[in-house]
Amino acid sequence: MVDCGDRAPAVYEALAGSVRRLIDVTIRTEVDAAVVAAAKAHIDCAVEQLSEVLTPGSFAVREVVDGQPVASGNVAIGVRNPVAPPLVIHRDADGVVWTEVTLGAAYEGPPGHVHGGVCALILDHVLGATAHQPGRPAYTGTLSLRYLRGTPLGPVRARAHVDRIDGAKTFAAGHIADSEGITVTAEGVFIIPTRAPR
Amino acid sequence: MVDCGDRAPAVYEALAGSVRRLIDVTIRTEVDAAVVAAAKAHIDCAVEQLSEVLTPGSFAVREVVDGQPVASGNVAIGVRNPVAPPLVIHRDADGVVWTEVTLGAAYEGPPGHVHGGVCALILDHVLGATAHQPGRPAYTGTLSLRYLRGTPLGPVRARAHVDRIDGAKTFAAGHIADSEGITVTAEGVFIIPTRAPR
Repeated sequence: MVDCGDRAPAVYEALAGSVRRLIDVTIRTEVDAAVVAAAKAHIDCAVEQLSEVLTPGSFAVREVVDGQPVASGNVAIGVRNPVAPPLVIHRDADGVVWTEVTLGAAYEGPPGHVHGGVCALILDHVLGATAHQPGRPAYTGTLSLRYLRGTPLGPVRARAHVDRIDGAKTFAAGHIADSEGITVTAEGVFIIPTRAPR
Repeated sequence: MVDCGDRAPAVYEALAGSVRRLIDVTIRTEVDAAVVAAAKAHIDCAVEQLSEVLTPGSFAVREVVDGQPVASGNVAIGVRNPVAPPLVIHRDADGVVWTEVTLGAAYEGPPGHVHGGVCALILDHVLGATAHQPGRPAYTGTLSLRYLRGTPLGPVRARAHVDRIDGAKTFAAGHIADSEGITVTAEGVFIIPTRAPR
């Protein structure tokens, strides 16, 4: 099963895809100042066009009138959020949650490596997804990460499973790995609130 | 003292600033499909222009010939990385490291709130900065986070201090807070490697 977050109207999803490519080349470009200025003019023009009608505040704080799931703006899985890789969350029949993603220049910390905090973001989301129920998101209570070695930029896999459930608390564990094995392990406690979201 | 990462040539920094604005309106726009298509055409044009000369791989894996610090591409503090807020890291005379930043729609997890993983990214970076030495970055060994309540999108402060140092290990602690107090606390062990970066 694939989580929601991938049902935004295609036109918005394509827009976010273009902005993801733009983020990558903005970091990596070595063109001269005149070309940068020309590109910036195009970008500023796009900003002006898209700003003609804006939802106030963030994506999820709005009237949902167009069938786009709230998660479309999510920084981890949101297909409308160019900061999101976006992660595609898979759930196996045995309860294992996993994702595969290629992380490029946008997610760099140490030279050539994924920022430790980006590993934390991915693990927070994947571990949290083990506790997630439709319409009732789980919130992080605690998260503990152990970095075994640097995670090279490029393709990575993350997976998580539930260790045990105690009332509203789900105890989850997981890791990130590259082709040579595990780079970061994680344990977390996730809470499904009984009241309205914080 | 303000860390490096803010010395990229102004033209690239301005470009990244425009892309940050674009990310925000890409998430929040409600214009119709025709306007989205027109904006996307501008963006694709900018991508093509900036792609004329690209460094292979990520930002930091290249010949440094132009005086731009490696950290310019960093996902937390990089002024050339549109995904970075970017954090501006301050160091007080007493060793406290802190940052103030306003987090918008691009960093959303639960509706109206910062993604728990983005809080982890910020805390990883701020705690790690307590152990950082010029030219010798510190790597995360372990990081433990406790989420006291949701962190609303908007202005937040993060700070960290060194609890103790034991050889290559720096034990740091810190938190994120909004105007009403602490939302997430963190403890971490950061390692200054004696050999080449992993």
